[in-house]
Amino acid sequence: MNDIALINPPAAEDGTLFLSVEHAIDLVRRKGVITCLRGIAQAIRADFLRWPEFDKSARVAAHSAQGVIELMPVADGERYSFKYVNGHPYNHRLGLPTVMAFGVLAEVATGRPLLLSELTLTTALRTAAMSAVAAQALARPGSRVMALIGNGAQSEFQALAFQALLGIEALRVYDVDEQATDKLMVNLQGSGLRITRCASTAEAVQGADIVTTVTADKLHATILTADMIAPGMHINAVGGDCPGKTELAAGVLTAGRVFVEYPPQTRIEGDIQQMPADFAVTELWQVLAGQQPGRLAADDITVFDSVGFALEDYSALRYMHAAALELGLGERIALVPEMEDPKDLMGLLRAPATPCWDMRRTTGSPLAFRAAEAS
Amino acid sequence: MNDIALINPPAAEDGTLFLSVEHAIDLVRRKGVITCLRGIAQAIRADFLRWPEFDKSARVAAHSAQGVIELMPVADGERYSFKYVNGHPYNHRLGLPTVMAFGVLAEVATGRPLLLSELTLTTALRTAAMSAVAAQALARPGSRVMALIGNGAQSEFQALAFQALLGIEALRVYDVDEQATDKLMVNLQGSGLRITRCASTAEAVQGADIVTTVTADKLHATILTADMIAPGMHINAVGGDCPGKTELAAGVLTAGRVFVEYPPQTRIEGDIQQMPADFAVTELWQVLAGQQPGRLAADDITVFDSVGFALEDYSALRYMHAAALELGLGERIALVPEMEDPKDLMGLLRAPATPCWDMRRTTGSPLAFRAAEAS
Repeated sequence: MNDIALINPPAAEDGTLFLSVEHAIDLVRRKGVITCLRGIAQAIRADFLRWPEFDKSARVAAHSAQGVIELMPVADGERYSFKYVNGHPYNHRLGLPTVMAFGVLAEVATGRPLLLSELTLTTALRTAAMSAVAAQALARPGSRVMALIGNGAQSEFQALAFQALLGIEALRVYDVDEQATDKLMVNLQGSGLRITRCASTAEAVQGADIVTTVTADKLHATILTADMIAPGMHINAVGGDCPGKTELAAGVLTAGRVFVEYPPQTRIEGDIQQMPADFAVTELWQVLAGQQPGRLAADDITVFDSVGFALEDYSALRYMHAAALELGLGERIALVPEMEDPKDLMGLLRAPATPCWDMRRTTGSPLAFRAAEAS
Repeated sequence: MNDIALINPPAAEDGTLFLSVEHAIDLVRRKGVITCLRGIAQAIRADFLRWPEFDKSARVAAHSAQGVIELMPVADGERYSFKYVNGHPYNHRLGLPTVMAFGVLAEVATGRPLLLSELTLTTALRTAAMSAVAAQALARPGSRVMALIGNGAQSEFQALAFQALLGIEALRVYDVDEQATDKLMVNLQGSGLRITRCASTAEAVQGADIVTTVTADKLHATILTADMIAPGMHINAVGGDCPGKTELAAGVLTAGRVFVEYPPQTRIEGDIQQMPADFAVTELWQVLAGQQPGRLAADDITVFDSVGFALEDYSALRYMHAAALELGLGERIALVPEMEDPKDLMGLLRAPATPCWDMRRTTGSPLAFRAAEAS
């Protein structure tokens, strides 16, 4: 704690930048979804390449009868981030999203929160960007057809990310809920993707180069079985992401090589939770860094068992922060005080209320504990 | 996950209530510091009495060369809370508080964030309230004189809490930094407390019924040694609260009985970090619940080795939430989306920006990924 020279000066801006849901929507509309997907993918790739620099831990989960609330912190020497995210499968009955999220990017040198941002929309972008980054390293070059199993909130983001970053031209889509597929068809109108509605997972998977599973609400549902898998496929398994929730049959996992984000978390939450603790997996960052091979041959089966790791949110927050500053979006809020005399916290109660980030101690006026107690 | 009847309907209010630093100052000024200290103490006591109902864990810390950033989650069946808090001993050189904090209170049944609040000022209130709740159970009845070692940001809150909740009439104060004591003298003017400036810790402790240590910035500093301790004293050790940071000599800890909040956390962070892993401690909640004795005799020495536990922030957030709603303080922000069709996240990008908590999907307009990509 003694090397004061390590401390960066605080950034010039006062207060914490707040990016609300509307601000994030505005940002994505102005940059374009695809520009954002590309930018976040670039940030994720860059951050995964310096994987050993990060202080990593499995997320901290609070489980209840109705769902789960999680905190996902990560840090390097410069920035700290965390995400708050819930998973409540019955929320849609109450008109609430199954998954809601927000998060913070902070300065490691001082602990000052720089950005507070919505992360519900942003998580959809970063999850799709992460899938595309993995597929770039693992899918067969020249992949053009993707099966998309599960047509819920995350599905269109996956479709657009794979179109933009992998060159996917055709989708074969299926969901047990036909209305979800209706919605996907509307949302992807004008995207240029050729979309085929299928009557089952097995039908959707036929002829696909890449199979993306993004189902939800199901406990140990077996979406994909070994008989559906053809040589050369890349499987992007996104939906199995918490204890008790899987999408792939064990036979799919043993048919190919399995790649994961952060093994201590994936072994608890991913599809590999059903496998022995020593089931062989490869860490994706090592593939990106050239330390481990990705796909070895055209007829290999590769599986990305994605659960979503805190570092991806760090990358997404960095991207959103830079984009918000570039576009002048967001507003400054007083999440923490900035004071002339940091040791005089009680002095805050003496000053008349002033703009948050310019809290100046005034002297002479009585403290609130007397004034208010007397009234 | 199947008992839908367990799900509470969402609260009537839309959006997340945001209590900024100014709002919290306004709230405390309007309620009065002492009313807030009493209210938070009452909430802490009530929550400690139902200790077994909470899902507890030690905080998650990210250490760096300059300090630490921590997340402190806790939940019962109804509410989930977490606090973000940093500790950066050199921050004052940059005009920033050593400790800054904010936190969230959320609905367990849905994961919806109900309240986002500053917690820098609020943590000062809850730490003092916690100390007073512990001292009510542990200090000698009729205690009137308190030594206050360390006169920084937390000190006046301790003084006022012990005056209001314990009946302390006189303070004996000391700090290595005379300016800190100057500030304390100013801030406590008009409080009714008789204050004696002392030239050393040893002098301040003489004749005290209660000794409160709230020093900071020191690594394994020994503030209090066994020879300073007199029979009957209660020691309220607040400043030693992270690995490598202690205030009490081992002889003080062995001279009396030691009471703690949550042993798994205190053994890492508290003054007892210097003792063997099986050093005997008593959990404070058991004393409050009548399951373990507190003080046994007038000449007992009791030690509250306080580090600050997530449940205290839960209690403080509950109090601040209720007070803010009562006074109509704070503002509604869109931290998470509320949507007509929660499965249609991408539909958010189609709608023109509307007020956050009334986000309605409109159909027909082109999606942002086309519009913006084309420009």
